[in-house]
Amino acid sequence: MRRLKVFASGKLILLYLLLVQFMADLVIKGGTLLTMNGSIIENGTVCIENGVITFVGKEIKEDAQKVISAKGCAVLPGLINAHTHLPMTLLRGYARDLPHMEWTQKIRMAEAKLTPGDVRAGARLGALEMIRSGTTSFADMYIYMDEVAKAVEETGMRAALGYGMIQGLNEDSRTKLKNREDFVRKWDGAARGRITTMYAPHSAESCSKEFLIKVRELAEKTGTRIHIHVLETEDELNLMKKRYGMCSVNLLDDINMLGPNVLAAHCIWLSDDDIGILKNKGVNVVHCPSSNMALGAGIARIPEMLEKGINVALGTDGAASGVSLDMWKEMRAASLLHKSKDPRTMPALQVLEMATVNGARAMGINAGMLKTGCLADIIIVDVDEPTFISCDLISSLVNGGSGCHVRTTIVNGKVLMEDHKIIGFDEEKIMEDARKAKSGIIC
Amino acid sequence: MRRLKVFASGKLILLYLLLVQFMADLVIKGGTLLTMNGSIIENGTVCIENGVITFVGKEIKEDAQKVISAKGCAVLPGLINAHTHLPMTLLRGYARDLPHMEWTQKIRMAEAKLTPGDVRAGARLGALEMIRSGTTSFADMYIYMDEVAKAVEETGMRAALGYGMIQGLNEDSRTKLKNREDFVRKWDGAARGRITTMYAPHSAESCSKEFLIKVRELAEKTGTRIHIHVLETEDELNLMKKRYGMCSVNLLDDINMLGPNVLAAHCIWLSDDDIGILKNKGVNVVHCPSSNMALGAGIARIPEMLEKGINVALGTDGAASGVSLDMWKEMRAASLLHKSKDPRTMPALQVLEMATVNGARAMGINAGMLKTGCLADIIIVDVDEPTFISCDLISSLVNGGSGCHVRTTIVNGKVLMEDHKIIGFDEEKIMEDARKAKSGIIC
Repeated sequence: MRRLKVFASGKLILLYLLLVQFMADLVIKGGTLLTMNGSIIENGTVCIENGVITFVGKEIKEDAQKVISAKGCAVLPGLINAHTHLPMTLLRGYARDLPHMEWTQKIRMAEAKLTPGDVRAGARLGALEMIRSGTTSFADMYIYMDEVAKAVEETGMRAALGYGMIQGLNEDSRTKLKNREDFVRKWDGAARGRITTMYAPHSAESCSKEFLIKVRELAEKTGTRIHIHVLETEDELNLMKKRYGMCSVNLLDDINMLGPNVLAAHCIWLSDDDIGILKNKGVNVVHCPSSNMALGAGIARIPEMLEKGINVALGTDGAASGVSLDMWKEMRAASLLHKSKDPRTMPALQVLEMATVNGARAMGINAGMLKTGCLADIIIVDVDEPTFISCDLISSLVNGGSGCHVRTTIVNGKVLMEDHKIIGFDEEKIMEDARKAKSGIIC
Repeated sequence: MRRLKVFASGKLILLYLLLVQFMADLVIKGGTLLTMNGSIIENGTVCIENGVITFVGKEIKEDAQKVISAKGCAVLPGLINAHTHLPMTLLRGYARDLPHMEWTQKIRMAEAKLTPGDVRAGARLGALEMIRSGTTSFADMYIYMDEVAKAVEETGMRAALGYGMIQGLNEDSRTKLKNREDFVRKWDGAARGRITTMYAPHSAESCSKEFLIKVRELAEKTGTRIHIHVLETEDELNLMKKRYGMCSVNLLDDINMLGPNVLAAHCIWLSDDDIGILKNKGVNVVHCPSSNMALGAGIARIPEMLEKGINVALGTDGAASGVSLDMWKEMRAASLLHKSKDPRTMPALQVLEMATVNGARAMGINAGMLKTGCLADIIIVDVDEPTFISCDLISSLVNGGSGCHVRTTIVNGKVLMEDHKIIGFDEEKIMEDARKAKSGIIC
C-alpha cells in the first residue's frame, strides 16, 4: 500500500512538472496590442516563456503561472534608449543654459571627481527612472562601466555597454585598450544574456586615427559592435577638416570602421555625401533631439535619413544635457522638432518605430516588437486617461504620453514593475544612495 | 440652574463660531514653496481663507478646517494655459501631419458638425485633463461658449472666456456682436468670480477692419479684455499686406485696439517694428510652441520679446494641434525650441514664470504667485521621484516634470483634486460622455 502511494504521488509530481512545462510563464490579456509588426490587435493576448514571446494574437485559453490583465491599456514593446550616459543622472541640472563647448568643459571637471561608487549610484538611479518610464533596453557609454554593468544586473534591465575611450585621458592607449578588451570579455552575455558589450571610442575628434584603427581591430576580433559620437557639433566638423582635411564620417569610412555593427550618435553636421556613406555602409544613427536642442548643437537631417532607409533610433543622451531619461519626452521632441520644418514628416508610427524596432536593430538585439520569438521586453501603458481619447492612439501616445502612464515593465519575461510598484530591488535605497552621492557634488 | 446651562452653552457656541472664523479654511504644510515671488521656502506653510492666500512662510501653528501635508512635494501657483480652444479635445488626432492651411480646412469641416452638447463634452474633458495636470486657469476662445462656461462652473476651474468671432461665419455681423455682448454680460463674474469674459475676434485676417472697430468699442464700453490670434502664419502676413498694405499688428494698432487688455496669441511673423509696437502698447503675448511646431507655423521671437520686457505667457492651443493640454510639456517645448537657437536663453525660472506669473498678468487675474492676497490657485507636485534628484529643482520641473507628477490641484481655495483623486465631479462620466461625443466624429 505504501509502495502504491509513493508510486501515485510520484506520478502526480511528474504530471505536475509536465503541465508546468507546457504552461506559459506569463500571459498578458485584454489589452490593445501595438505589435510594431504591422498590426494592432484589440483585446489581445501575449504569452511569454523563458524570457521569449511565444504567442501574440487574439485571446486564447492558456494556462500560465502568472496572468496580468491589460484591460484599458496598450501593450507594446519596451522602449529602447539607444544612446545615453546613465550615471550622469548625478549631474542633472549641474551645467545649465550653456552652449556645448562650455557645457563640456564644466561637465568634464565634475566628472573627474566621480568615484566608482558615484557611478554605480547614478547608474542605478538612471535604471530606476527608465524602468518606471517604460524603457527596457539602453545603449550606454561612460566611465567605470563595471559599476554600470552591476546596476544592470541588479535591476534586471537589458543593456549594450561600451566602456568609453578618450585617448590621452587617464590611461595610456595600450592600457586603455587592454582594459576595454577585458571589459568586453568579462561582461558580454552576463546577466543571463541581458548584457552585451561594445567598444566605445568617444569620437573621431577625441581619438587619433591610429587608436581608432586598433579599436576597429579589437572589435573585428570578437565581432563586437561599436558605439561612437559622430559630428555632434560644428566645432568637431571644423576641427576634423583642419586636422585631416576631411570630416569624421569620411575618416571612419577611410579606416573601414563603418558598418551595420556601428551605433553613431547625433550625426548632425553631415553633408549629402556623408549621409550617403552612412546609408551605403548600413550604419545605425541615434537621434537625440532633446540634448541637441538643449545644447544648441544643431538639427540632424533625420526625416531625410529615414527616407533614404537609414536605421535611425532614438536616445535621451545623458541626463546632464537632456535632463530626462523619459523616452516619451524624447519621442515628442523628435516629432515636434522636425515637424517645425515640415509638418508632413515624422508621423507618429515612425517615431514610435524609432523608439522600438529601430532601437533594437541598432543595438543588435531581437526585440522591439511583439512577435513570436522576440525577447519578452514589454510594457503595459494606462490609456484610460483623458489625453488618450483621440482619433489615433499612436499619435496620442507619442505626443501626449508620459513615463508615468507606464504601469508595468517587463524585461526578458521578468516583471520589473507591476501596477507602478517596483519589484526586485529597493527603490527608496537607490534614491537615498543617489542623493548621498550627489551631495558630494557642488552644484 | 437651567438658565445657567443655557447661558454657558450659548457662550460655548459663540466661542466656537469665533474660533472657526479665525481658523484658516485650508493650510498646506511641509512642502518646498516655489513662490514665484522671489523666494523658495523649504518646509513652508501656505494658509488659505475664503479663496485667498492669507499666509506664506515658514511653519506656523495655525488651526485650519483642513490641513494638507506637502511633505516630499513642491508647492507652486497653479499653471495657467493662456491660449486654448478647450472643446477641441474631441478633435485630438483628427487632422495629423498636415501644414497649417490644410489642417485648418479639415478642422473647420469637422467643427461645422459639432453640436452644443459635443462642445460641452469636449470642454469638460479638457477641464479634467487640465485639473489632473495642474492647470488652474485658462483663456479660451471657441464656439457655443455657454457650454464651455457651464463646464468651468461644474468642474471648479478658473477661466477667461471669449466667444470666438469669424466674420461672415454662421451669423450676420450685428447679430454676432449682440450675442457676444450678451455672453459677456451673462458670464462675467459667474462661478463665484472664477469666470471672466473677453471679446474674441478670431484674427485681423478673418474679421474686417470695420468689424474689429465695433469689437473694440464694445470692449471699451465695459472694460472687457480682448483675445485675438496675431500673425500665426506667413499666409496671414501676406494676405494682410495684400489687403491693407500693412500687417495685422499695424492694422490693430491703427484702430487703437492694442493695449495691456489684449491677449495676442502666437505672434510669429512679426518685424522688429511690430515687436516694438507690442512692447510700447503693453500687449500680452501668448506663446504656443507645441502647436506652432506641429503645424510648421514658424518660430516666434520669444527670447527677444522677453528681453524687451513684453509679457509673454504660455499656452497649449487646442488639442487638435498641440495634442496635449499638459502645460509641463508646453514648458519643456518652449525651453528646448529656443535653446536650439541659443542655449543661454529661456532659463527654467523664466519658463516657469511664463506659465504662472505672466499667464496671470495676461488674463488680468491676481494669481500666479504664492503671495498673501493672491487668489488661492495652488498645486502640489510630487518631487520624491528619480527625475527630480537634481542640482536645480526648477530646472528639473520644467524639463523633467509631467502632468502626472501633480498630486493636488486647488482653485479659489477649493480642492479639485487631492492625492490624484478628482473631487466634486464624476470623472468616469466625463470620459464616457466625451467618448460618446467623439464617436459621432468620423476619424
